[in-house]
Amino acid sequence: MITRQNFKKEALGILDWIDRYFERLRELPVKSCVKPGEVYNGIAPHAPLMGEEMEAILKDLDSVIIPGVTHWQHPSFHAYFPANSSYESLLGEMVTAAIGAQCMVWETSPAAAELEQRMTEWMADAVALPKAFTGVIQDSASSATLVAIITAREKATQFQSNIHGVPCGLRVYCSSEAHSSIEKGVGVAGIGRNNLVKVDTDSLQRMIPEKLEKAISRDVAAGLTPICVVAAMGTTGTLGIDPLQEIAAICSKYNVWLHVDAAYAGSALVLPEYRHLFQGIEHADSLVFNPHKWMFVNFDCSLYYVKEPDLLIRTFDILPEYLKTATHGQVNDYRDWGIPLGRRFRALKLWFVLRGFGLEGIRQKIRDHIALNEYFALQISQSGCFTLLKEPFLGFTLFRVNATDDSVSEKLLAAVNASGEIYLSHTKINGRFAIRFHATQTYIQKSDVEKAVTTLHRFLTERQAHQ
Amino acid sequence: MITRQNFKKEALGILDWIDRYFERLRELPVKSCVKPGEVYNGIAPHAPLMGEEMEAILKDLDSVIIPGVTHWQHPSFHAYFPANSSYESLLGEMVTAAIGAQCMVWETSPAAAELEQRMTEWMADAVALPKAFTGVIQDSASSATLVAIITAREKATQFQSNIHGVPCGLRVYCSSEAHSSIEKGVGVAGIGRNNLVKVDTDSLQRMIPEKLEKAISRDVAAGLTPICVVAAMGTTGTLGIDPLQEIAAICSKYNVWLHVDAAYAGSALVLPEYRHLFQGIEHADSLVFNPHKWMFVNFDCSLYYVKEPDLLIRTFDILPEYLKTATHGQVNDYRDWGIPLGRRFRALKLWFVLRGFGLEGIRQKIRDHIALNEYFALQISQSGCFTLLKEPFLGFTLFRVNATDDSVSEKLLAAVNASGEIYLSHTKINGRFAIRFHATQTYIQKSDVEKAVTTLHRFLTERQAHQ
Repeated sequence: MITRQNFKKEALGILDWIDRYFERLRELPVKSCVKPGEVYNGIAPHAPLMGEEMEAILKDLDSVIIPGVTHWQHPSFHAYFPANSSYESLLGEMVTAAIGAQCMVWETSPAAAELEQRMTEWMADAVALPKAFTGVIQDSASSATLVAIITAREKATQFQSNIHGVPCGLRVYCSSEAHSSIEKGVGVAGIGRNNLVKVDTDSLQRMIPEKLEKAISRDVAAGLTPICVVAAMGTTGTLGIDPLQEIAAICSKYNVWLHVDAAYAGSALVLPEYRHLFQGIEHADSLVFNPHKWMFVNFDCSLYYVKEPDLLIRTFDILPEYLKTATHGQVNDYRDWGIPLGRRFRALKLWFVLRGFGLEGIRQKIRDHIALNEYFALQISQSGCFTLLKEPFLGFTLFRVNATDDSVSEKLLAAVNASGEIYLSHTKINGRFAIRFHATQTYIQKSDVEKAVTTLHRFLTERQAHQ
Repeated sequence: MITRQNFKKEALGILDWIDRYFERLRELPVKSCVKPGEVYNGIAPHAPLMGEEMEAILKDLDSVIIPGVTHWQHPSFHAYFPANSSYESLLGEMVTAAIGAQCMVWETSPAAAELEQRMTEWMADAVALPKAFTGVIQDSASSATLVAIITAREKATQFQSNIHGVPCGLRVYCSSEAHSSIEKGVGVAGIGRNNLVKVDTDSLQRMIPEKLEKAISRDVAAGLTPICVVAAMGTTGTLGIDPLQEIAAICSKYNVWLHVDAAYAGSALVLPEYRHLFQGIEHADSLVFNPHKWMFVNFDCSLYYVKEPDLLIRTFDILPEYLKTATHGQVNDYRDWGIPLGRRFRALKLWFVLRGFGLEGIRQKIRDHIALNEYFALQISQSGCFTLLKEPFLGFTLFRVNATDDSVSEKLLAAVNASGEIYLSHTKINGRFAIRFHATQTYIQKSDVEKAVTTLHRFLTERQAHQ
């Protein structure tokens, strides 16, 4: 067992391990090649009775765990949305873990509550969000979107759903390309997934406002109650950007809560040249974006902004005797701003990153990523082997192999991912298979992008030679 | 900005800071003395444009943040339930943060999914949970209880609530002493807080089974649908233990989901001599307990066990194209086992703690805490100044000042907490003020307990001298 006396020695061993991990990260297969059960079977079926040395744990970390890790911080991780981190964020997490505070209410950690308040203000300012928004840190965009849906539910039903249960016929709207968390959230909130209306999108995967209005007015005519529209600023599949101005006007006309899901793309708002994408945001009721996606803050750190925090608090407030404090009402008790009572001190890593990078440092890195992605898109489109399915956009490229049969793209993706050299993911666009690529890992270099280009070409050529 | 080249140097600086933090922890005021706004006003209103040196951040960490921290790892933290950690857990968190994996599905981190599976098995085994239970790690007990309520909702309504919305008249039951998260969860789930029936407790804050049965049968007769009973194994206020056997029999008779909230007390089940408390657990449908409370695992790490994981998965499952993987159905994709899509690699710190301590090490520490608490209870009861309101139990003592006027206890608590020397919290029992004390901080020593005893006496004497 580690004691106060040998803590530093043991911690130095861990730090050495971490430093070596970063040293060899580029040499590790980015996507784990283990088969189901391999890691599981490598771990003893029971906990040891007697404590072991850290050395033994680190040995197994290297031999059993690491081969099963898909390395999200690997510069060749181009899949999904990134969950990128940074050295600054890691150091912030170390301090957070050392302090080990449980930040449910102001009194149990005033610094956590007040740093959280300041950091949400710093970020609102950094992305030029109107002053009308108040922020709170949630664990994930799916939780934040659930919180938005439930608050909209309460507002629409004069806070009676919370008390008496959800009435029939509440309706929520998003586009057919919106994130699955909305459907899940509508189910969790007791509204019913069938009451989520999926509005058609145009050829750029943007919600068609006329279709939204038609759906809402039809529902109203049928005696149903529209409560919330979730607009996507960057759909998960293809980064489609819903027309916020038009959607906001419809929400305003029908008095419907407008929640904006900018989980990934929100980070781009630190760049003034991309803020036009968010025109109309001042009319939203709430917004989520995740510094843990593309702003170098270690997962989890999701920013949720709301115009009327009173509605949020009234929705989630509960005050048993054992949680009463003398300061309640004068301070932000963030347990009332979301679902879990217990909360980590997440603001600290955001503070480390924002101060360590500075806003200009963050802007530079995001601009670099956008440029690297454009370079990637240019390289693969010029080769004639691939078709771009969308202009390269915000560090993201959507493409497929030039072939009528989508299985060529599908098999190529499976092969490159299995190689461990690079890792990309997929979606479907208009019913067809499409490969998703991000150039957004924090420490990605031009050479990493070149590796992605050559790996894709090499695997494609090899496959074609074998046919 | 930190680079690969200077990362280790900067990390060593952080490690030094952490080591000094632990060195001076006993000298720091356990409960922060800052006033509302003090930390907030100590932080610049905007993020810096240019990156700063780590030295500047650490300077502000010491001068602005730390004075605002209530130190949960301070051995004189006796308040609430503990959120205790350990050196082993901190090292595990460092590795987790360095790897920075987002563990939503098996393929994005096979090792995280499979280590999570093993760790939930290790823990089930450690606390002698019947083999019929399958585990998953959630962020908090409030989230786990919400998950249980929603799964019960779906089971009772043949998975139609998720689809069509929650029907009227679903009913949930807990005791009047149960945790506030149940009421909050019933609201979130769309069932309505008025549909939570709070069953009376006996003089030991235990649910009265006859009252539960009466409430259920009355509801059934009224055409309502009982769906879930939440039994508390250790209520938050006073550690009341609901009679599980009798409650389980009633749940079985009426075909109602039985969820057991053992968030704090569950850790005591590593001790064979306390397992009798949980007789009847084999009849529960689900159970939550938090290694992040009293098992030296850094917050957040909440274990949720369920007998029929298929019901859980069917409740939370959602599978958009961009999340489809070749292994779906063969492996545990834990995003379908709870609310948030994104997930941290929480199993790693549990592994570090279980291996570093060994089960015997954990047992020894918990037994030490129980003994230290008994010593505390003896000291304060023998002095004649205080009345024990409950036999010392599982590291916890409930007491008040020997005085007819409760404000004496209330003022004493406010005074000792404001002193920063020790930190305790309160509850109400039978309408009267009661002080809660835990001897459960990981590295608490007998001298820390003696300090608590003498501090309480000193402040009481001082107050009495001034009257």
